[in-house]
Amino acid sequence: MSKYKVLFLPHNKEIFVKDGENLIRAAMKAGVHINASCGGEGVCGKCRVLIEDGNVEGGTSEKLSREDYAAGYRQACLSSVKSDIVVRIPVESAIDASVLNAWSSPRRAAGVREVNFEQFKEDGRFLPPVEKKYLELPKPTAKDNLPDVARLISYLKRKYNEQRLVVDLPVIRKIPDIFREDNFNITVTLARPVQIGRKTHIINIQPEDLTGKNYAIALDIGTTTIYGRLIDVNTGNIMARYGDFNRQISYGEDVIARLVYAEKPEGLERLHDVVVEIVNHIIQKMVQEVEIDPEQISAIVLAGNTTMTQLMLKINPKYIRRSPYVPASALYPPIKAVDLDMAVGDHVSTLIFPAISSYVGGDIVAGVIASGMYNAEKLTLYMDIGTNAEIVIGNKDWLVCAACSAGPAFEGGGIKFGMRAIEGAIEDFSIDPFTLEPMNITVGNVRPKGICGSGLIIIVASLFETGVLDNLGKFNRELNTNRIREQDGIYEYVLAWADETRIDRDIVLTEPDIDNLIRAKGALYSGCMTLLEEIGIGFHDIDRIVLAGGFGSYIDLEKAMTIGLLPEIDPDKFTYIGNGSLIGATICCLANHIRKDIVEITRKMTNFELSETASYMNNYMASLFLPHTDISKFPKMKQRLEARKLVKSGLNGSRLKNHR
Amino acid sequence: MSKYKVLFLPHNKEIFVKDGENLIRAAMKAGVHINASCGGEGVCGKCRVLIEDGNVEGGTSEKLSREDYAAGYRQACLSSVKSDIVVRIPVESAIDASVLNAWSSPRRAAGVREVNFEQFKEDGRFLPPVEKKYLELPKPTAKDNLPDVARLISYLKRKYNEQRLVVDLPVIRKIPDIFREDNFNITVTLARPVQIGRKTHIINIQPEDLTGKNYAIALDIGTTTIYGRLIDVNTGNIMARYGDFNRQISYGEDVIARLVYAEKPEGLERLHDVVVEIVNHIIQKMVQEVEIDPEQISAIVLAGNTTMTQLMLKINPKYIRRSPYVPASALYPPIKAVDLDMAVGDHVSTLIFPAISSYVGGDIVAGVIASGMYNAEKLTLYMDIGTNAEIVIGNKDWLVCAACSAGPAFEGGGIKFGMRAIEGAIEDFSIDPFTLEPMNITVGNVRPKGICGSGLIIIVASLFETGVLDNLGKFNRELNTNRIREQDGIYEYVLAWADETRIDRDIVLTEPDIDNLIRAKGALYSGCMTLLEEIGIGFHDIDRIVLAGGFGSYIDLEKAMTIGLLPEIDPDKFTYIGNGSLIGATICCLANHIRKDIVEITRKMTNFELSETASYMNNYMASLFLPHTDISKFPKMKQRLEARKLVKSGLNGSRLKNHR
Repeated sequence: MSKYKVLFLPHNKEIFVKDGENLIRAAMKAGVHINASCGGEGVCGKCRVLIEDGNVEGGTSEKLSREDYAAGYRQACLSSVKSDIVVRIPVESAIDASVLNAWSSPRRAAGVREVNFEQFKEDGRFLPPVEKKYLELPKPTAKDNLPDVARLISYLKRKYNEQRLVVDLPVIRKIPDIFREDNFNITVTLARPVQIGRKTHIINIQPEDLTGKNYAIALDIGTTTIYGRLIDVNTGNIMARYGDFNRQISYGEDVIARLVYAEKPEGLERLHDVVVEIVNHIIQKMVQEVEIDPEQISAIVLAGNTTMTQLMLKINPKYIRRSPYVPASALYPPIKAVDLDMAVGDHVSTLIFPAISSYVGGDIVAGVIASGMYNAEKLTLYMDIGTNAEIVIGNKDWLVCAACSAGPAFEGGGIKFGMRAIEGAIEDFSIDPFTLEPMNITVGNVRPKGICGSGLIIIVASLFETGVLDNLGKFNRELNTNRIREQDGIYEYVLAWADETRIDRDIVLTEPDIDNLIRAKGALYSGCMTLLEEIGIGFHDIDRIVLAGGFGSYIDLEKAMTIGLLPEIDPDKFTYIGNGSLIGATICCLANHIRKDIVEITRKMTNFELSETASYMNNYMASLFLPHTDISKFPKMKQRLEARKLVKSGLNGSRLKNHR
Repeated sequence: MSKYKVLFLPHNKEIFVKDGENLIRAAMKAGVHINASCGGEGVCGKCRVLIEDGNVEGGTSEKLSREDYAAGYRQACLSSVKSDIVVRIPVESAIDASVLNAWSSPRRAAGVREVNFEQFKEDGRFLPPVEKKYLELPKPTAKDNLPDVARLISYLKRKYNEQRLVVDLPVIRKIPDIFREDNFNITVTLARPVQIGRKTHIINIQPEDLTGKNYAIALDIGTTTIYGRLIDVNTGNIMARYGDFNRQISYGEDVIARLVYAEKPEGLERLHDVVVEIVNHIIQKMVQEVEIDPEQISAIVLAGNTTMTQLMLKINPKYIRRSPYVPASALYPPIKAVDLDMAVGDHVSTLIFPAISSYVGGDIVAGVIASGMYNAEKLTLYMDIGTNAEIVIGNKDWLVCAACSAGPAFEGGGIKFGMRAIEGAIEDFSIDPFTLEPMNITVGNVRPKGICGSGLIIIVASLFETGVLDNLGKFNRELNTNRIREQDGIYEYVLAWADETRIDRDIVLTEPDIDNLIRAKGALYSGCMTLLEEIGIGFHDIDRIVLAGGFGSYIDLEKAMTIGLLPEIDPDKFTYIGNGSLIGATICCLANHIRKDIVEITRKMTNFELSETASYMNNYMASLFLPHTDISKFPKMKQRLEARKLVKSGLNGSRLKNHR
């Protein structure tokens, strides 16, 4: 994984990349615009660059002439970096590097923080909730004919000082035969109490020594996707991962649609059955992948939003969507996995992450666990951005939270060419401020099919930064480009022409799309504002921001600040933890004492129903601008905009004709 | 229920009886012999007596001549006492009352002690394990939209200072709809923890005020019979009782046969299904009788011997019957009744009385609870005499127990004409020491069909007292009576001739029958002896003896001492408590704190496997005599026997010819 230096000219920008890195992606990361409409598939032929020094692999197609190839030109999107290189981007000679760099800046995503389970061990916090012990019990004799269960319990007391042991009926039923299957040599599975002094349950008994095989399953039940992890609780290693779509989607795209379906006759049962079927499929896939006996799964931890949790538990969620939005329960007791129809042994208990309210669910509590904010001194803002967005602010002393009805824009919903971040989705974008030509990069480097959430944010921010959009999110009607046009009374920007796409239609971004994004980011930002106001602090008091959720890792922080999605805060304060819900569930599989923290968090966390908070609507209305009505909240953005305006007016004469 | 005085002549014995008492039963109680072969049906006509003063009702059949009737003669077995009367029994004029009374003595059963639940209330020990509370919850509003479960818990905390509440999944599933069924007016059922500081479970939720309807079921699962009680836990009243045969009998008469059957393919499942079916039938019968909704049953307590318990819980009992006789478990956790296939609500937990060993089961622990011996200063011997006999000795400081393989003789098993104590069973008996003619009294006063356990003890004792049997249990071959005869090499006594019976065969008692009884009583007596020796005390140290079990109330204490079944102890020290197992289960339905005592008892009680106790076999062999090899253990018996020998030898010349 050697690192090569790539120097872009005339920008004079350097970036280090790994061996084989795609050159156009390297340019995007460096903040260097190269015209590219086809998403990186090599068919538009616009991304011609000159390799002045060093080697790239590939970089050619029928779109590149022999002469150009011989002269050192390559198609950036088809080139893999194989050494230190110097690349020259063909730009208008009148424009120097400083001007070029005024619009585009290197991508700066939040630093990814991975939970370090090794650290858990070093800290002595590695205390799995289930433990296997191999016992060679003394055989019964005429003088010592204790009942089997009593023999087991007294041995565990004597040899391991185990106290307060409980054996449940299904285990008792197995004990007599299993004791005698391998001559009273057995492996017991102990489920540890969360609180010292509570009972340890003997949940399983197996013949022979099976202590080496002890696994847990962490599950994140999302509205759209369900993720699982298979964890070796002896080592803390994640053995397998598997994700799949939540096939409840057939019964409704979003939470509200599911709630409506659940009220139909047999609707709840159907939704329960469907989600359990996928969960079982995920478990089966993981178990098969690492070839373990499913009987060796000893524990399951499950996190999901309030509705997904109630559907999984087959609890009528009818009152979640009706004012005053009351979920069935916050805390759930441990539940036998078989009682939820999960295809595991009847000894397995499921820990269900508790909900805070109808729209701040167990997935967020798990995220708070994953973030560690609940026992940190520092003040943290946790944001889980998905179909809905939830925010938590606090530290070890207090926690407040709220759900923002962001709508589905961040996941591509409500956007004309919106799509999930799968192959063909435009995930990164840059615009030539003069030609207004796009640089599209798609997931999988293929011709575009649509726009995903992170792409949308970057596109809107870039259009705004170049003055293509005004602060209301409307296109500048006076620009001289055929990429901006009116169709049936609606203005739109053409990201890719039909023949550059996989769908044989022009892919466009419309003003209603932009409105949707503005409402989504406005909901989130004003949610944060309202929470902060309620507790009497401001964004400047926040010590760190933790991003979680499907596309948090792809969010370009500067672009997100540009549109007013994120507050203008030092990018170093941002971290991205990924699927907070799944990480929280994973931690719970390895650190039993965390379960006590979960209950604490549930007690401590104050939920604000934004719709019931007086200041929310004002904050929301003020957020329906790019970046915000009150530009003073975004001083750097203001500065940047003004600087660019100057550059632009100075260069007004040199506007190039748009291509095509 | 007026009391009449009955004076028997020439015995000059008085007894007080209730209005309408059967005269021949009154005679038996008084210890007055009247020849009577037909069990009390009036067909043998032998029980002719002269009413010298006062009135009886009935007392005549075609067996009594008009002349005799006119002269004041009546058939005793058909006569009901309707006033004070003087009755003369026709006996040989040469015999005076003192001689007559040397053989026969008034019946003296153990005093019956009923558990007084009213006393429980007065003592403040009335603390049912389940409690219903009616709550009018505040309705949720926009400002107060706690999750439903949290609303319930916080209200219970605030209003009733309820702490550590747990709500299980099935209840959570019901809560959202039931809250809104009657406008947040609900009845919750709380299951109390046994130990202070443990959790209270909210096990059920119902709309409206149902606090007045709260019931528990106590069950005694016997090898032969199953008894149930339906208890109002608000008042402590027993609302209904129902008993039925354990239809597992089809798969084997006794415990060992059931154990054998349980090892067949599907055998365990079949036995489980059969017993549960009867239990459900019993519950249904009781519920129908008092017209309650089965949903209002909140708790079940179940006691049974170790095998019956394991079959009920569907736990393989294979190792119970194999040396070293290991049951699956002593203690069982509370088990959902529906998990045992019981037809009650899924909120109902079943408390299972714990076993001590393979042959000292939960029925005995329940009996120990019923007897109160575990918290008494006085030293108690508890004996549950049934198919097997179990004994417990101890007080509040210590308890020891053992099971005696008495065999089924006490319940009529292994006896040629043995039967259970149902209609037609000879339950009481007396013998004329001179004519050797019997006085048979049967259950239901009908012609005899056979002999039940209590009858057997009295018959053998009477035959022994009159010298018809020697101390080896063999018939005196020299007696001049056709009632003693040899059939196929086996000596027997004819209790009733074929035409006096309901089975058209002579009903006899054979020497092998007597051997069986001697072995049974020997097992029990030597079991007690061995236990006493092991702990270094003797029968004289026992302060009271508690008899329990099916026929304990019918045992004539003197006769039982005569054959050496019971030790020769002041009859005032005996009490009979009936079905100890069922009473213990009932107590548990009303006094939750008792459950802690149960665990204590299980810990405290030391089981002796008699077959593994060195002195047992010697004690057993010494007990295979009437009453015992060491007659000095039975001084009163010895005295009585000697007195009677003197009378007999003095009267030798006047031996009457036997009848018929």
